[in-house]
Amino acid sequence: MTRLALDVNNMLAPRLQGEGVDPQRLAGSGDLAAAFARAHAEMERRRAAGQLGFLELPHNLDVARTVSELADSFGQWFEDVVVLGIGGSGLGAVMLREALLPPHWNELSDEARSFHPRLHVVDNPDPRTTQSLLERLDLRRTLVIVVSKSGSTAETMALYLVFRERISQVVDADKVRGHFIFVTDPTEGVLRRIADAEAIPTLPIPPNVGGRFSVLSPVGLLPAAICGIDPVELLQGAAAAEGRFCSPDLLDNPAGMLAVLLHAADVERGQSIHVLMPYADRLRALTLWFQQLWAESLGKRSGDGHVGPTPLPALGATDQHAQVQLFMEGPRDKVVVFIATPADDVALGIPRLHADEPALAYLGGHTLGELLDVERRATAEALRQQQRASMTLELPQVDAQSIGALVLLLELGTVYAGALYGIEPLDQPGVELGKQLTYGLMGKAGVDVPEIVQGDERWRL
Amino acid sequence: MTRLALDVNNMLAPRLQGEGVDPQRLAGSGDLAAAFARAHAEMERRRAAGQLGFLELPHNLDVARTVSELADSFGQWFEDVVVLGIGGSGLGAVMLREALLPPHWNELSDEARSFHPRLHVVDNPDPRTTQSLLERLDLRRTLVIVVSKSGSTAETMALYLVFRERISQVVDADKVRGHFIFVTDPTEGVLRRIADAEAIPTLPIPPNVGGRFSVLSPVGLLPAAICGIDPVELLQGAAAAEGRFCSPDLLDNPAGMLAVLLHAADVERGQSIHVLMPYADRLRALTLWFQQLWAESLGKRSGDGHVGPTPLPALGATDQHAQVQLFMEGPRDKVVVFIATPADDVALGIPRLHADEPALAYLGGHTLGELLDVERRATAEALRQQQRASMTLELPQVDAQSIGALVLLLELGTVYAGALYGIEPLDQPGVELGKQLTYGLMGKAGVDVPEIVQGDERWRL
Repeated sequence: MTRLALDVNNMLAPRLQGEGVDPQRLAGSGDLAAAFARAHAEMERRRAAGQLGFLELPHNLDVARTVSELADSFGQWFEDVVVLGIGGSGLGAVMLREALLPPHWNELSDEARSFHPRLHVVDNPDPRTTQSLLERLDLRRTLVIVVSKSGSTAETMALYLVFRERISQVVDADKVRGHFIFVTDPTEGVLRRIADAEAIPTLPIPPNVGGRFSVLSPVGLLPAAICGIDPVELLQGAAAAEGRFCSPDLLDNPAGMLAVLLHAADVERGQSIHVLMPYADRLRALTLWFQQLWAESLGKRSGDGHVGPTPLPALGATDQHAQVQLFMEGPRDKVVVFIATPADDVALGIPRLHADEPALAYLGGHTLGELLDVERRATAEALRQQQRASMTLELPQVDAQSIGALVLLLELGTVYAGALYGIEPLDQPGVELGKQLTYGLMGKAGVDVPEIVQGDERWRL
Repeated sequence: MTRLALDVNNMLAPRLQGEGVDPQRLAGSGDLAAAFARAHAEMERRRAAGQLGFLELPHNLDVARTVSELADSFGQWFEDVVVLGIGGSGLGAVMLREALLPPHWNELSDEARSFHPRLHVVDNPDPRTTQSLLERLDLRRTLVIVVSKSGSTAETMALYLVFRERISQVVDADKVRGHFIFVTDPTEGVLRRIADAEAIPTLPIPPNVGGRFSVLSPVGLLPAAICGIDPVELLQGAAAAEGRFCSPDLLDNPAGMLAVLLHAADVERGQSIHVLMPYADRLRALTLWFQQLWAESLGKRSGDGHVGPTPLPALGATDQHAQVQLFMEGPRDKVVVFIATPADDVALGIPRLHADEPALAYLGGHTLGELLDVERRATAEALRQQQRASMTLELPQVDAQSIGALVLLLELGTVYAGALYGIEPLDQPGVELGKQLTYGLMGKAGVDVPEIVQGDERWRL
């Protein structure tokens, strides 16, 4: 197996002319090499202090096996699995389903799914979507996985109450508990108390693993396993890559290089918008998973100021017809991180029809995968010719092992970037105010009802 | 019907303190009012010159009726409709399907779809997705709508060749033409020639309507109509709102106000990232449609420099657990445009269970729609308390008329913004280089094969 690689040539001065980074800064006694050494030491210090729980997950093969057993016992009985989880509690499951299962999984026949259940991730308390899903499900054959570390996430808890009541209406009282699995803190919180009281099966989210770093915990592994993805392979892929992504040698550490170059692009050249752009539909959900990871980890107060790049999901070739005009001719405020995947995993030939039409004739004889790969290379080169920065993550294949490795790369890259920005990448204090205002407006006991001053009607046009 | 409104209170100095715009600048002889007057005059000039074809679309009720008739005749026979179209040729159809049809349309039973066809939009030449779709379809009962104004879009044409061959394999030669409709230029291009030669039915994209402004032409109307959306209502909703969105009075023109405030936020305060954030799953696809409109129209060379805001799709409440941390505590480089919709279109109550748990008890008795609406208000207020700018588009309901109006608002807002930025919003010259490089790499006759210099292997880690 060829390993995952990061090609950064199109970030560097030789190719990008005046707009690139001088490669000497990255090697030896260069300042960016030194900055990485400090970030790396910070990572090692935090790891030793037990703060980076996500680094321990790839080694928990026992957890993966427990998940597999639970998944096997449940997966055969249930036709539909519903994950109730928002943010990091939902994005990982969607990312794994899209990357590793056949496209449009829920539209496939039982045979095409090898009799694995459909997988629905409800990541929003939208009444219309939820009602429609409830109408489609046979709740007697539906398993609900409730994912909330604290057990107090308003959106997820509201959805849990809705699903709990509906299931209670169609199955006997003593059977209700068999339709739920809680993925939550191992000792604390509401879900833990309910699970203990009612003997509802649970799987733990380790206390030192935050939501957006939890995809390789049961948060992501359980839904994946129920649909036939091997959790052991996910972990093994991550574990095999760990040495390289934890290496102190920047020149052999793609996670470190990603962080160093994106951070420098932001703070030195104002390239604060970081585009992640795979050329494969199956990785579209990965860009949303990364968006949360990068945005929520790095968007922080820093002293008297505010820092943090803005991650921007994109998809090739589609976005060549939507966002690339802006990337090419708009402000120089972006770096594009392409993801390359093998061109012909599925060899679908373009037939030679209409050979008399020059606008069609050149396509025949190629494959769709070739076309897509050519478009990626053409777009990277077009950006380079405009001295616009990009790099390319190359996946040797898209399977559980390589996705496990890619997850670890991006998670460690986030921790390195947090150190480079000088902020705490593991918390999210900025969402607390909105939560408190929501509690107040919803009438939660003990929370003051906020006074929101009405706007001037004149400015409501 | 209450009309669509734009609440801009949270952009203004009174509420946003030092960070807001002084309202006097927007009224009377204020400088922003004057800037809008110039932008408005430019719009009127271009309209009179016949350059703004999208403004004529709402009045083409004959086109809507033709589309309806065609849709009726086709829709009954076919079980699946496949749209081949990328960028503006695909995003509009997805946007209308998601906004106006029941959720997860393609997963519903025939009855739940009122026996309308499923609607698949293939907007990427991804071999894996395409192969999977081909395996699921009964091509004998599949209609393919090929959408390309020029008829030379590489991705769409490659997919057309693939579908054409596959259909030819399962139906008689003289029946192939009955499985295709081309939506293309009325007189020119490859698709036009093929249609004329083979008597394939076509619908026109007016020459003065660009792809990203074409959703109210047959590009969007035909797929919508086949699935049961009334194209006449879409047009009527837009037509009814046109007077207000074309009004020279900035204080009564939400399209103008949106453009003026977002432009000023960018050029005066560096708020160059424009977030569109509905609180409704059904409007998620609208944010992608808007992303193309805003990015491709405004991201341009301007003299020796480069301008253009970066549109950023978001979804409430989901993104409160992904992007809002960055919006709250990251750099002050964003404006959030919320979209509010009625809270209880679908009244789905949250049951009173676990009343002894304070983290759950406050939820019971409310509805999911209330929770979602409270979260939107709480997030806007939390941003305001941090002096972070937002505004809110209020949709009185989500139906074909209001979506037609919203489309026109955003399209006209884009034209006004183009005038304010001093650029041409209707072209996309920056994508040409990538297209030529693709042609060269694919071996198109008459195009030189580009020499792409290999990167240094040392910088491929």
